[in-house]
Amino acid sequence: MASFRIEHDFLGEKEISNDCYYGVQTMRAKENFDITGIPIGSEPLLIKAFGHVKKAAALANRDLGILDAKKAEAIAYACDRLIAGEFTDQFISDLIQGGAGTSTNMNANEVIANLGLEYMGYKKGEYIHLHPNNDVNLSQSTNDAYPTAFRIAVYLKIAAFSVAVEKLQKAFFDKGKEFEDVLKMGRTQLQDAVPMTLGQEFNAFATTLGEDVMRIRESALLITEVNMGATAIGTGVNAPEGYSELCVKYLAEISKVPVILSADLIEATYDTGAYVQLSGTLKRNAIKLSKICNDLRLLSSGPRCGLNEINLPAMQPGSSIMPGKVNPVIPELMNQTCFYVIGADLTVTMAAEAGQLQLNVMEPVIGMALFTSLQYLTKACNALRKKCVVGITANVEHCKNMVMQSIGIVTQLNPILGYEECSSIAKEALKTGKSIHEIVVTERKLITQAKWDEIYSIENLIHPKFIAQ
Amino acid sequence: MASFRIEHDFLGEKEISNDCYYGVQTMRAKENFDITGIPIGSEPLLIKAFGHVKKAAALANRDLGILDAKKAEAIAYACDRLIAGEFTDQFISDLIQGGAGTSTNMNANEVIANLGLEYMGYKKGEYIHLHPNNDVNLSQSTNDAYPTAFRIAVYLKIAAFSVAVEKLQKAFFDKGKEFEDVLKMGRTQLQDAVPMTLGQEFNAFATTLGEDVMRIRESALLITEVNMGATAIGTGVNAPEGYSELCVKYLAEISKVPVILSADLIEATYDTGAYVQLSGTLKRNAIKLSKICNDLRLLSSGPRCGLNEINLPAMQPGSSIMPGKVNPVIPELMNQTCFYVIGADLTVTMAAEAGQLQLNVMEPVIGMALFTSLQYLTKACNALRKKCVVGITANVEHCKNMVMQSIGIVTQLNPILGYEECSSIAKEALKTGKSIHEIVVTERKLITQAKWDEIYSIENLIHPKFIAQ
Amino acid sequence: MASFRIEHDFLGEKEISNDCYYGVQTMRAKENFDITGIPIGSEPLLIKAFGHVKKAAALANRDLGILDAKKAEAIAYACDRLIAGEFTDQFISDLIQGGAGTSTNMNANEVIANLGLEYMGYKKGEYIHLHPNNDVNLSQSTNDAYPTAFRIAVYLKIAAFSVAVEKLQKAFFDKGKEFEDVLKMGRTQLQDAVPMTLGQEFNAFATTLGEDVMRIRESALLITEVNMGATAIGTGVNAPEGYSELCVKYLAEISKVPVILSADLIEATYDTGAYVQLSGTLKRNAIKLSKICNDLRLLSSGPRCGLNEINLPAMQPGSSIMPGKVNPVIPELMNQTCFYVIGADLTVTMAAEAGQLQLNVMEPVIGMALFTSLQYLTKACNALRKKCVVGITANVEHCKNMVMQSIGIVTQLNPILGYEECSSIAKEALKTGKSIHEIVVTERKLITQAKWDEIYSIENLIHPKFIAQ
Amino acid sequence: MASFRIEHDFLGEKEISNDCYYGVQTMRAKENFDITGIPIGSEPLLIKAFGHVKKAAALANRDLGILDAKKAEAIAYACDRLIAGEFTDQFISDLIQGGAGTSTNMNANEVIANLGLEYMGYKKGEYIHLHPNNDVNLSQSTNDAYPTAFRIAVYLKIAAFSVAVEKLQKAFFDKGKEFEDVLKMGRTQLQDAVPMTLGQEFNAFATTLGEDVMRIRESALLITEVNMGATAIGTGVNAPEGYSELCVKYLAEISKVPVILSADLIEATYDTGAYVQLSGTLKRNAIKLSKICNDLRLLSSGPRCGLNEINLPAMQPGSSIMPGKVNPVIPELMNQTCFYVIGADLTVTMAAEAGQLQLNVMEPVIGMALFTSLQYLTKACNALRKKCVVGITANVEHCKNMVMQSIGIVTQLNPILGYEECSSIAKEALKTGKSIHEIVVTERKLITQAKWDEIYSIENLIHPKFIAQ
Repeated sequence: MASFRIEHDFLGEKEISNDCYYGVQTMRAKENFDITGIPIGSEPLLIKAFGHVKKAAALANRDLGILDAKKAEAIAYACDRLIAGEFTDQFISDLIQGGAGTSTNMNANEVIANLGLEYMGYKKGEYIHLHPNNDVNLSQSTNDAYPTAFRIAVYLKIAAFSVAVEKLQKAFFDKGKEFEDVLKMGRTQLQDAVPMTLGQEFNAFATTLGEDVMRIRESALLITEVNMGATAIGTGVNAPEGYSELCVKYLAEISKVPVILSADLIEATYDTGAYVQLSGTLKRNAIKLSKICNDLRLLSSGPRCGLNEINLPAMQPGSSIMPGKVNPVIPELMNQTCFYVIGADLTVTMAAEAGQLQLNVMEPVIGMALFTSLQYLTKACNALRKKCVVGITANVEHCKNMVMQSIGIVTQLNPILGYEECSSIAKEALKTGKSIHEIVVTERKLITQAKWDEIYSIENLIHPKFIAQ
Repeated sequence: MASFRIEHDFLGEKEISNDCYYGVQTMRAKENFDITGIPIGSEPLLIKAFGHVKKAAALANRDLGILDAKKAEAIAYACDRLIAGEFTDQFISDLIQGGAGTSTNMNANEVIANLGLEYMGYKKGEYIHLHPNNDVNLSQSTNDAYPTAFRIAVYLKIAAFSVAVEKLQKAFFDKGKEFEDVLKMGRTQLQDAVPMTLGQEFNAFATTLGEDVMRIRESALLITEVNMGATAIGTGVNAPEGYSELCVKYLAEISKVPVILSADLIEATYDTGAYVQLSGTLKRNAIKLSKICNDLRLLSSGPRCGLNEINLPAMQPGSSIMPGKVNPVIPELMNQTCFYVIGADLTVTMAAEAGQLQLNVMEPVIGMALFTSLQYLTKACNALRKKCVVGITANVEHCKNMVMQSIGIVTQLNPILGYEECSSIAKEALKTGKSIHEIVVTERKLITQAKWDEIYSIENLIHPKFIAQ
Repeated sequence: MASFRIEHDFLGEKEISNDCYYGVQTMRAKENFDITGIPIGSEPLLIKAFGHVKKAAALANRDLGILDAKKAEAIAYACDRLIAGEFTDQFISDLIQGGAGTSTNMNANEVIANLGLEYMGYKKGEYIHLHPNNDVNLSQSTNDAYPTAFRIAVYLKIAAFSVAVEKLQKAFFDKGKEFEDVLKMGRTQLQDAVPMTLGQEFNAFATTLGEDVMRIRESALLITEVNMGATAIGTGVNAPEGYSELCVKYLAEISKVPVILSADLIEATYDTGAYVQLSGTLKRNAIKLSKICNDLRLLSSGPRCGLNEINLPAMQPGSSIMPGKVNPVIPELMNQTCFYVIGADLTVTMAAEAGQLQLNVMEPVIGMALFTSLQYLTKACNALRKKCVVGITANVEHCKNMVMQSIGIVTQLNPILGYEECSSIAKEALKTGKSIHEIVVTERKLITQAKWDEIYSIENLIHPKFIAQ
Repeated sequence: MASFRIEHDFLGEKEISNDCYYGVQTMRAKENFDITGIPIGSEPLLIKAFGHVKKAAALANRDLGILDAKKAEAIAYACDRLIAGEFTDQFISDLIQGGAGTSTNMNANEVIANLGLEYMGYKKGEYIHLHPNNDVNLSQSTNDAYPTAFRIAVYLKIAAFSVAVEKLQKAFFDKGKEFEDVLKMGRTQLQDAVPMTLGQEFNAFATTLGEDVMRIRESALLITEVNMGATAIGTGVNAPEGYSELCVKYLAEISKVPVILSADLIEATYDTGAYVQLSGTLKRNAIKLSKICNDLRLLSSGPRCGLNEINLPAMQPGSSIMPGKVNPVIPELMNQTCFYVIGADLTVTMAAEAGQLQLNVMEPVIGMALFTSLQYLTKACNALRKKCVVGITANVEHCKNMVMQSIGIVTQLNPILGYEECSSIAKEALKTGKSIHEIVVTERKLITQAKWDEIYSIENLIHPKFIAQ
């Protein structure tokens, strides 16, 4: 009993270990492409999605009478095993690959053919009974099957990511509620501005992420447009009448993803606009998350020589030399993840712009960029929530003291004293170190103590009313 | 009669020429910021938008009883003149400026105050009667008035851009119709694939731009959210109860832009998400336009040593040394414009990420990036349409001949002969230079001439039917 | 006397105003390219550089006997006027243009031809006596003359930029010296670390900029490689034997720029590596300058609710609503300029990658990016020095007090007490609010007051010695 | 015998499996940071480099009398095992991590301590005899040890990359030689220009890569500057006099990398300029490699409907639907790798700009970007050489025929007939489809057949001489 079988394609023959469900074309891809060392099987949702696509195609082909029912059954069986999460180790092509995904598609075709052959009682490699190209790939091309599978996988990853962002949003809202009475100094341009609450600050973090959840969902919708039946370039050559619609109908049922058929299959076959839009949305999200983490690091700076308004949970000793030092490691983790995502968006940009004529051959690196960005951001959002946000505490007294000793609170006197008088007060405070109260009430006697108390009550500082003369 | 007046702020006094409607703070900005040499007045829509904003604020302040009706009338008068397009030369601050737009806002406040003073019968600089801060800027801060004016200006620029893209889309559709019977070779990965029509190719350009028009409109919607009444940091300090809603209502009426009030003014005051989204959409559009122009340049390559499928209108001699050479200068113009826009999107990304705490101080450079990107792309779309697309002609015979002599047409025989036999035919054709017809019909006699004629009729090449045995 | 003359090229005839020194091809460029609205004449060094290039070519052609001495004299005369800075208003092509610079080159050829014609006693447009292509462009192509002129102009702009960076470096060194005894807290990850001096901090700003001056100079060297004599694609077609070397020799003499001839003219004609390197260096510089300005803004944050270690000169009132607020407007100006430059580097990246075969047609937008980046950064460096750095003052007492009340100074006790004991001390300090001195000397009596005084003398805090038991 | 030991730090205790050489802080890092799933041990050169750094530090500490000779010996022993490539599986921290590399440094400290403890006859975790912080990290901080190890690892990776680029350069030179007599059409702006040889084209690819080898070496030099002895922030707190110099001397000997000590340790501790420069150089290389691969794909386009000047080796079937189709998969692989590298450069840019005050906390993601970029580019260069360039063949006759039938060869007649006459000839050829020879010699009789033969000999087309009347 030989441990190898011989397979061939039009470039010649190759030995394939009998353990392997993939065949000669996958083997060539393995030899040709070795860049990241990360196999496509590392993305289980992509393998699952190929199960969805190939099954839908087989059922449509069967219904249209161009695929034998037995073969269709065998293909469907094989696809179900992929959908169940099995055989990801048989998907060995590198994430970055030439050939516009042909290797990934053929990897799927070969694994499904061999699984199907065994189901039918044949040996692996006896493709005369079930052929990777003629049967599994029937009415398809890489150029429709691959992007469709990719889109389904991305859609599912977006779903997980949305949940992570929503939970993070919720965590910020909860903190916003918790801190709603914590008076603190607002700052613009890093300079003391006017009072606000820490609750408002955290609430705004939630608001801004909430907007992103909506943008992410809009991007996900664009991803659901697929081009099954386009075959090579969108003209549908070699696909029977009615195949596109039927295949997409099956696909929506099998995958539970609300896929729809593109109206212009020529355009759909090369266009990467939906990926660019998604990547741009992830970049937007990264920008916001990075901004939030920059703020968290600023607000928790100190403990004695910084702003020190909030405390982040201590996650690990912060220094190999400085005892007791604790660093904002989780926000730092997020910042770096965001920089990765922003870089990956540039990769998508370059790759999308490089598409030529009827196909964008750079889709694999777009896939790599989107998969890793979604994966990393999801994890980072979960880490930020669980290991940081939920455990944040406020230094309430310190926050309030900074407000009361600030110069910025002179702004509240504008409607009474006018901008120019207030400027003069501020200038004196800055020069002498005196408090606003001292100058306004004690020295210049511009307002009474009672008026001062009305304006500078905690209540009015938190929810300022318009108080004139 | 003095040709200078003396103005002061809390940093001291400055001489201002009596010709000038701007005042001391604008003067300081002029001295402090000299980077691009391009004044904000070069963007007339921004000045107009300040007219809208300041007038809306004045009317709201008047209605709420905190601004004298006479002053409100004077402000409204001044704003109307800005809205009419006058006095853009009085807006001299540089596009790139520190201070988060304070200089731009004060430039507007000062010009309006002085125009208003003259209307009231006073001299420029007699701010006791109408004060830039106390009156024109009443219930406002740079941090709400500036981004609101900016958003209105951007919204109006987007409108012009959408029109340009739509007209370009239409031009491509028209060409798609014109070329609907031009048979040509489709190409994937720059390799001959299967036949299609030139009409399909141009139609797809139209389709892809049509999708972008929708994305641009979605982005425009986000831009309409404004934060009037937020004042310094979103707490609304110094703005009277009800002001936000009233001001925004006036603003929508005056500007005809469907502005709405943000639900979370703290977040709205620092968030740049809408700009990031818009910039990302422009980047997406740039990617698509660049791809289209790459294709146009490829398809028109030659005339004798390239693909030579289409001819672009000759716009100018193409070489100072090579006689008769004509280059695809308009697509090249678009490519470069797109690279500018993609670079500008990175500027927006960096600037948005750099926002800290209650304000994003980098808004001016975001403004510069968005204004120039919108402006340049609009012009480039119009140029592409008028000076290139509408004049494109097809080399019909050459296109058809390439199809018929290609190897790629063997694909049509897959359903009859199977992938492996077809591969063998293709391999022989490549090696020997023979045509597919010669090998299939004459030598191997795999199909009859009649079958060949059925499969390879122009009609079937253009609209392929599924033809098996 | 007609106010128009008729000129023609192979696309037909055009009327040209007799005031204009440019001709038909420039006119076409003007009509074809209207994107930025900024004419190439806005970069006077580029026009001057064309004077250098065309004069050098004319003299070489004369010496080699293929250009009449009279014509050469007329061309040299015209070039000298361009070199003197005249006629920049005759250079009207837009900065972004299709055609790989042909319009810019022809603009120069036409202006020089007409200036030369007048010098020879002819009328503008009588090209039979001095022809833009046959004479002024003799032995040249856009593809060598244009990049060579561009490189000379860039080289001269780099020189001005280097000076600006060096002066800024010097200003930081001077402040480093001034602040050499100002003890302050060092911070890593925004958390209190160990003491240092403000002088060290400013000195490091100078060091880091000094390294960039070296990188800028290295980049400038790459720019000096030129390809005169390459003509259309580097094969030197239509240029006589010996022309390249002679022309470059003249060019170095005339321009005073140490240009050298590329060894591989085919490569030199399309390669944009030197621009990419320069742009990358400008990006590096922008990253450093932005980091420095971020630090300056952090260190001057406050005045009462921030770090408040230093004071930046007050340049203008900082708010239209908050009296007395002063913002770090000059560092903000630099940050934004840096973001522009980083974006422009991406434009260069895209454009450089898009070069195809024997020419990079995207050079005009590369030129635009490099010219503006150099211009803006030079101005921003000068502004940062003059309007900010030289006027910075330190809050000496506040800086010192923060050190002494910090927990971070426990690090100095590591060699005596070990990392774990020190961690325990730090933990107690953080929890209780006690000072390190209180815990170590008073409570735990781990070291004597004398030892404390030795370790925590200002001298030892500034220049720490290794002090063990 | 327990299979777990208890370790503690100042945040509490943790169980560590007795199999593990790492300790409590590594464990925390593992729990805190899970983004990429790629452990730092996946980069064996980094682990090796930590062996170099920690050994050098131990020997210097021993010589300076602050580390017991026995402990130094144990540390050196442990380091030698890391240098030998062992124990990479003990380095489990994620590539993206918060804490500025503290986790990576502590991972090394802990593994080395426990290896050393076993060597000394103790059990893992008995840190009283050899302490990760007090002994292994003695005179060090993460902020000097980590970047130093990182720089050594990067230096070694650059060396491997340079070799790959040089070999690729050589392969192109060899092809340049092989193709030196293959006449072909040169193209500018994708339009037919003037003749050249295929050898010149390939030679230019070699030239352009040769320049990059020089740039890469310059970048490597900057990387050799290290800051050992800087400790926490560059003041050298807790490092004894003379330690820096001694440690760096040892380090150069042990690692064979020519490391030198930075002159300004404050600056060196936070500056990321060397990484930015290296990343910029990699980006430049990526731009060039992508351009080369774009050209290879263009030149091999076809086989019948493209340029078809060269044939790339067939590496795998190119389509799941189109029989016989072969795609340029290896150049496509390189393009995508380049887009990854360009994206990674943006990650480095963002991370470098985000450095604050005395440390750049974003170094881990910079490390990730540089390691992957170097790794991927090295592999892609090797693949391009071995699987593509060395096997390229030319379609000699087709190349020559295109030249002879082109219009571009009229350029050679400029010196004889002038630009305008030649333009007229070109225009007629374009319009009528006639050859240049037909118009010039037969119809217009502008030159004799003998002159034609002189000008259009293969020899003169390849090495054009200046031929006038």
